[in-house]
Amino acid sequence: MAGTLEHEATSVLKSNGKVFDPAAVAKEPVPPVVASDDAIVENKREIVLGRNVHTTCLPITEPEVDDESTGGKEAFMAGVLARYRKTLIDRTTHHLGYPYNLDFDYGALAQLQHFSINNLGDPFIESNYGVHSRQFEVGVLDWFACLWEIEKDEYWGYITNCGTEGNLHGILVGREVFPDGILYASRESHYSVFKAARMYRMECVKIRTLVTGEIDCADFKAKLLPNKDKPAIINVNIGTTVKGAVDDLDLVIQTLEECGFSHDRFYIHCDGALFGLMMPFVKCAPKVSFKKPIGSVSVSGHKFVGCPMPCGVQLTRIKHINALSKNVEYLASRDATIMGSRNGHAPIFLWYTLNRKGYKGFQKEVQKCLRNAHYLKDRLREEGISSMLNELSSTVVFERPLDEEFVRRWQLACERNMAHVIVMPNVTIEKLDYFLNELIIKRSIWYKDEKVQPPCLAADIGSENCVCLLHK
Amino acid sequence: MAGTLEHEATSVLKSNGKVFDPAAVAKEPVPPVVASDDAIVENKREIVLGRNVHTTCLPITEPEVDDESTGGKEAFMAGVLARYRKTLIDRTTHHLGYPYNLDFDYGALAQLQHFSINNLGDPFIESNYGVHSRQFEVGVLDWFACLWEIEKDEYWGYITNCGTEGNLHGILVGREVFPDGILYASRESHYSVFKAARMYRMECVKIRTLVTGEIDCADFKAKLLPNKDKPAIINVNIGTTVKGAVDDLDLVIQTLEECGFSHDRFYIHCDGALFGLMMPFVKCAPKVSFKKPIGSVSVSGHKFVGCPMPCGVQLTRIKHINALSKNVEYLASRDATIMGSRNGHAPIFLWYTLNRKGYKGFQKEVQKCLRNAHYLKDRLREEGISSMLNELSSTVVFERPLDEEFVRRWQLACERNMAHVIVMPNVTIEKLDYFLNELIIKRSIWYKDEKVQPPCLAADIGSENCVCLLHK
Repeated sequence: MAGTLEHEATSVLKSNGKVFDPAAVAKEPVPPVVASDDAIVENKREIVLGRNVHTTCLPITEPEVDDESTGGKEAFMAGVLARYRKTLIDRTTHHLGYPYNLDFDYGALAQLQHFSINNLGDPFIESNYGVHSRQFEVGVLDWFACLWEIEKDEYWGYITNCGTEGNLHGILVGREVFPDGILYASRESHYSVFKAARMYRMECVKIRTLVTGEIDCADFKAKLLPNKDKPAIINVNIGTTVKGAVDDLDLVIQTLEECGFSHDRFYIHCDGALFGLMMPFVKCAPKVSFKKPIGSVSVSGHKFVGCPMPCGVQLTRIKHINALSKNVEYLASRDATIMGSRNGHAPIFLWYTLNRKGYKGFQKEVQKCLRNAHYLKDRLREEGISSMLNELSSTVVFERPLDEEFVRRWQLACERNMAHVIVMPNVTIEKLDYFLNELIIKRSIWYKDEKVQPPCLAADIGSENCVCLLHK
Repeated sequence: MAGTLEHEATSVLKSNGKVFDPAAVAKEPVPPVVASDDAIVENKREIVLGRNVHTTCLPITEPEVDDESTGGKEAFMAGVLARYRKTLIDRTTHHLGYPYNLDFDYGALAQLQHFSINNLGDPFIESNYGVHSRQFEVGVLDWFACLWEIEKDEYWGYITNCGTEGNLHGILVGREVFPDGILYASRESHYSVFKAARMYRMECVKIRTLVTGEIDCADFKAKLLPNKDKPAIINVNIGTTVKGAVDDLDLVIQTLEECGFSHDRFYIHCDGALFGLMMPFVKCAPKVSFKKPIGSVSVSGHKFVGCPMPCGVQLTRIKHINALSKNVEYLASRDATIMGSRNGHAPIFLWYTLNRKGYKGFQKEVQKCLRNAHYLKDRLREEGISSMLNELSSTVVFERPLDEEFVRRWQLACERNMAHVIVMPNVTIEKLDYFLNELIIKRSIWYKDEKVQPPCLAADIGSENCVCLLHK
């Protein structure tokens, strides 16, 4: 893959006559994202750094004087957009690795694209800016409040720009409640959690994980005990990014209690990025609920629900928000959000889908996703491919494909020896078969020579899920 | 206005039978946003806290079993959306107080609303997720790099979710470059600057302002001198929120130099929210340029350019970004952005407008805005209304209307005794006349009785701009 990089560098040199070094923006080797200090492993894999986008970008050009009369520019731009649309269709068809539901139809909302809709500041207090969608936003928030069992007059929340903003907000609220609190998070937590710790200058302790990807509460206990003098702020994963593992919220709370933390000495943020919205619809799944001593929950809106742009939902207890908020006369609004200006279209998309599908619609889709995920895992196993599927999850982890071109084609997210497919509502059995057939053909080429063997995934997903030469 | 609040509280009580106390989310009185410690003034004005949105929100309802056959739900939702669209048209028509250009036509881009476009992580490194718009994003960034005079291989940047994210990013980069740096910002800086200081646990020193709203460099000097042992991180306003005042960047740099700060001991972030994009097109305006010792510049994309949702552009020097970035194998991408997941539609909107209008198109629009702003200020003066218009600015500051209903109708942003109108490309002379006529009629009612007098604005905009009873 170093070859690809060199090739790119050369082409830049040739195309504009200037030496541009792509390595300048991608200098360092890429280590595993969530390695805790005691588990840093040498990263031997060659990394695909991707192509520097300057080479392929679409420059802005000044309109010609006669453009208005000839329509030349309009035609040029229409051509660019048409080609781009074709690419999007192709890329949307070949997509399996990210938890985005690409199956939505918001045609009825196209009429709203003409408006600059901005939900400035607090969703519950109207600002003077009238072109907003707070009535939709609060409708959506109320629905989630009901889902997570908190009364309308006890919660505060807003529609965020993405899952990361939810985590940034939840952890910030935790820090404002406990300024000297220590942040605990499992090493398989999303990277935004560790980014938050750095941004907010918080002490952060990484907790080991079980092979499933869940937080290891024995290690959590061992790390809590020496820090009993400081409050605890805990990030609980309702579905980790890579393995879709759901941390055991009840065991986390029990561990805190066993270590002598009373409920006024800890703050739990639940990062429900994807599964936070799927779990309520799964029978027997442990409940994320504000009836338990948690401080906040966030989920992404563009993942399971599906939305043209990233967005998310963040809910917390109203009593905590006073620690964070500041009064801002300029907007005639207190601003306890992180972003201030917020996309007013996203709440309408969410409102529209929640209304159309309802609780029962989501339940059906979750069932379909879990069923299809099991199908994929079973088929992989039949073909002798190492794979794992956590209970409550639609994330199928399997051996990382040898060929990075294949990884890019199917837009798989990879880490160490693992790749994963996240089975979303738009992923049908037909699409999975298409993918499986390609994978099987490719593997027969990659591994036809016995000198090259599929990777061992025992360290990643446990030897019981690994069918490499050693473990099968 | 306390009456409005009580009324709302009562109506909530009546409509759902439960006591909901709006004061719970809006308890504190609202102080001026940027009062520095030595200038906190008693806020005597009654504050409009706005209505609690639970009363007017659009709840999510579960679809009925027969909805699919009868189409009842679809019809209901179409009705809600049609009414909402009408409100948006009305609110867009009566809008003067916020710096949003509401005049855009993105019809050609409606076809892209079907795609979940997400620019994950660094714009310059492709991630495995293929449904992105990096090629548009980098095209837009290159255009801004050219505008602000920095070479393509020396800058790094991204399209943000809003102006606040630009400020949060710029100040974070400054803090990573100088971990023990002190943040200096004029008291009229946008509130997100002070929010950043609190989030990032930075020492923050507020600087006084001149009556124009510009940073007072004499006070800056006085506050720098005792802190010479620590690096300085400075927020420079290229257009303040309320008065549209442009801080004198060259004088700020000169002051730093005079106080003995060498260029490797300070970091300047330019908050160009609105005027950062207008100033380059104004003759004789001081230049924001990376040829000067600045670290970053941000502007909003939804303001002067106009965009259906908030967005912005953030540019910094690539050498600084290494201090911030972390490697994230999960995305095959380093992530030096704040949000990680980013709206991929916004770059396309910006790309589209920049291409259509070009440098010359923007120049024409800026000229029109400045001309119309002067018209408004002159008309206000003719009518005996206190008002101010800073050079280089299209923000007309004038006396705060007595009636909050009028303020809401025209969506004016207010602070202390001031209101402002921001003249954007969609604000025509006709619209200004419509507004002026209404204001004049209303004033003749508000002030017909001599016991009530228009407010004095001498403290806000200087006695030379005030025509109250005392100063006219």
